[in-house]
Amino acid sequence: MQIAIPLFDHVTALDAVGPYEVLSRLPGAQVTFVAHEPGVLRTDNGMLGLSADVALRDLPAPDVIVLPGGFGTRAAIADEAMLAWLRTAHETSTWTTSVCTGSLLLAAAGLLDGLEATTHWAVKGLLAQLGAVPVDRRVVRQGKILMAAGVSAGIDMALTLAAEIAGDDVAQTIQLYIEYDPEPPFDSGSPAKASEAVLALAAQVGRTEQVPGVSG
Amino acid sequence: MQIAIPLFDHVTALDAVGPYEVLSRLPGAQVTFVAHEPGVLRTDNGMLGLSADVALRDLPAPDVIVLPGGFGTRAAIADEAMLAWLRTAHETSTWTTSVCTGSLLLAAAGLLDGLEATTHWAVKGLLAQLGAVPVDRRVVRQGKILMAAGVSAGIDMALTLAAEIAGDDVAQTIQLYIEYDPEPPFDSGSPAKASEAVLALAAQVGRTEQVPGVSG
Repeated sequence: MQIAIPLFDHVTALDAVGPYEVLSRLPGAQVTFVAHEPGVLRTDNGMLGLSADVALRDLPAPDVIVLPGGFGTRAAIADEAMLAWLRTAHETSTWTTSVCTGSLLLAAAGLLDGLEATTHWAVKGLLAQLGAVPVDRRVVRQGKILMAAGVSAGIDMALTLAAEIAGDDVAQTIQLYIEYDPEPPFDSGSPAKASEAVLALAAQVGRTEQVPGVSG
Repeated sequence: MQIAIPLFDHVTALDAVGPYEVLSRLPGAQVTFVAHEPGVLRTDNGMLGLSADVALRDLPAPDVIVLPGGFGTRAAIADEAMLAWLRTAHETSTWTTSVCTGSLLLAAAGLLDGLEATTHWAVKGLLAQLGAVPVDRRVVRQGKILMAAGVSAGIDMALTLAAEIAGDDVAQTIQLYIEYDPEPPFDSGSPAKASEAVLALAAQVGRTEQVPGVSG
């Protein structure tokens, strides 16, 4: 089973690595990171490089596609070569998935017209501009398309997908192996749960995605 | 604030990327991936390359250390140059942290002798052999040392650390931005919660960490 994760500059690492960590543990899975050209792509803040090993043109028909998000999606939605690869790969994929703003690429490729969809809470307006109907759900399925909300939601999406592909026991074994028994120290993971102070701080997060200097 | 994440071959990507995704969003944070020599290191299954940008010798005194785990820790606990770097860096660090089997390095460096500690559930015996006292908690603190259990627990640990460094509002803003509002589709994330069938499958997970072929 070939699982392709396209990378681009200014990708959000956890969007890609969460699903990778789940799906690479499926029996017979081969996860391949792909990009226009093989090489190292830098994350949204520039602090981490991830290797793409294979060119998009050399992996035209993966079984599973996982589109990560990140600030780089704003350029990627105008990247006709990337969108053309996605449209073609989607024709033969078993599953086409996205995490966070990765769904903007699905929408830009015309795959979400008029369909309920999800993305990072901060960019639902942009997703709507691209023709989808944003909803407040962490994982949204449309046929063989599976979408996750922001960043960490890719782990939940990938476990859902793992169960679809290999059954509940395998998915639960992967959950056990990555010890995904979450105990967040706070309950502030969605706009509906965050305090006014946190929502105000979040509104100031800029291109580096660092929280403004409250303490430093 | 300099945050160093040491990489080595056969690292588990999510161990490093979970905390990176949280801590890089702290005000003024600079996360640097380090290794013996700059270059690309491959993950436990070989499917992903992560870039180390700086040599260990060129970042001897970071403010925060995050030690990821992975099969590569079995070699790293015998890597005297790595352990020497860790011991020296720990002398001046504000926080020294680990995820998953990263705590084996702390123990091998002599920093956990007789202390309660945590790691991946599957290697608690090895942690005990190295002189620590394994406990069943997801995040364990010993002074300025903060340890997470397996793989995904690094996200919880990093949010705890973010609050210590920059206060609850900033930590909660980061939680909101990475939309960490977990909804795992199953409740199988610890040995105490997993079914007998899942525990049996987990016992067969080998070096590639793929679940044996139930369906594929």
